[in-house]
Amino acid sequence: MNRGKFITFEGNDGSGKTTISKLVFEELQAQGIPVVFTREPGGIEIAEQIRTIILDPKNTGMDARTEALLYAASRRQHLVEKILPALEAGTHVICDRFIDSSLAYQGMGRSIGIKEVYEMNLFATQGCLPDLTLFLDVSVEEAMKRMEGRGNKDRLDQENDAFHQRVRLGYEMVKKRYPQRIHVIDAQQSITEVKDACLEEIERILAHV
Amino acid sequence: MNRGKFITFEGNDGSGKTTISKLVFEELQAQGIPVVFTREPGGIEIAEQIRTIILDPKNTGMDARTEALLYAASRRQHLVEKILPALEAGTHVICDRFIDSSLAYQGMGRSIGIKEVYEMNLFATQGCLPDLTLFLDVSVEEAMKRMEGRGNKDRLDQENDAFHQRVRLGYEMVKKRYPQRIHVIDAQQSITEVKDACLEEIERILAHV
Repeated sequence: MNRGKFITFEGNDGSGKTTISKLVFEELQAQGIPVVFTREPGGIEIAEQIRTIILDPKNTGMDARTEALLYAASRRQHLVEKILPALEAGTHVICDRFIDSSLAYQGMGRSIGIKEVYEMNLFATQGCLPDLTLFLDVSVEEAMKRMEGRGNKDRLDQENDAFHQRVRLGYEMVKKRYPQRIHVIDAQQSITEVKDACLEEIERILAHV
Repeated sequence: MNRGKFITFEGNDGSGKTTISKLVFEELQAQGIPVVFTREPGGIEIAEQIRTIILDPKNTGMDARTEALLYAASRRQHLVEKILPALEAGTHVICDRFIDSSLAYQGMGRSIGIKEVYEMNLFATQGCLPDLTLFLDVSVEEAMKRMEGRGNKDRLDQENDAFHQRVRLGYEMVKKRYPQRIHVIDAQQSITEVKDACLEEIERILAHV
């Protein structure tokens, strides 16, 4: 049996990542392809407990490195309990955000440094990287427009513009670091066009046995 | 103003570490020396939340690397909120367990490897190591005797003998790795003798400005 492919979606807040990744998953599933959809903490009890600490709006004194270590701990548990067992069973995994989010958000957004955050995350992932990452690219203006009217803000949503600018820059650096793995999708298009562009890349990687 | 000295106590379960480190702290305090006593999570709210996850007896499915990342996250927050501010204010810090416990318990006890756990912990500590570490050395038999009759067992107390054997071996390797920093104290002696031997080492390091 062939190992499943590990496909992640990345993008700035407001890129439409969550909507698109779910639509893509549903389309693949409708085609009878063995696939699961997940995002950290993914219903994994220990990862959920960790995520509660990270997002608690009361934890304003959380150090940037503490936050990065907690994301890596949540990632580790989600990986070993959910992603790896699925891949080993030959099921493809669509995951909304993975290691690249930490490189952009903690590495650049929190100014720890991409290299340091990457190396620490290696402890969590033991080198497991996605087979394909789809980066949904939108302008700052479009992202802002899409984010307006979103409800309850957690500790990360409350960050200022400078933080989100650094995250954008972080993603630019991450894209340059992994040109083979990360495919940029123009996410300014209609939902259907974005979804189809993503499916095209995914079909290409699924054909690769 | 001189920076305070950072002094840690290490040892296997049943070594008397907690009792001795508190007595040493009280003696230094009685001598009018500026000193604080702490142990992770040390009353630091975020570190306490993390520790609750680690020790929860229900979390039997916790991966070894998740556990190591959570200890490092708790350590980071305790370090930045409590230890570093004290040292910078010229106060000495006595800490019951620090990075060496992770090297022994996660590195060897959980078989992750000392080097890997050390490198990941560097992300948390940014190179901050104790000025002096006192390792309280007792035989397996003596440690077992002292541990008998201890009450409520958490997730780590429930580990089997093979785990505790690996931890012992881990400490042997850690002691060889840091011969300058780690001083071995014969903890089979009476409490007063052990305390006095620790104070002797501490007075030597405090005289070193």
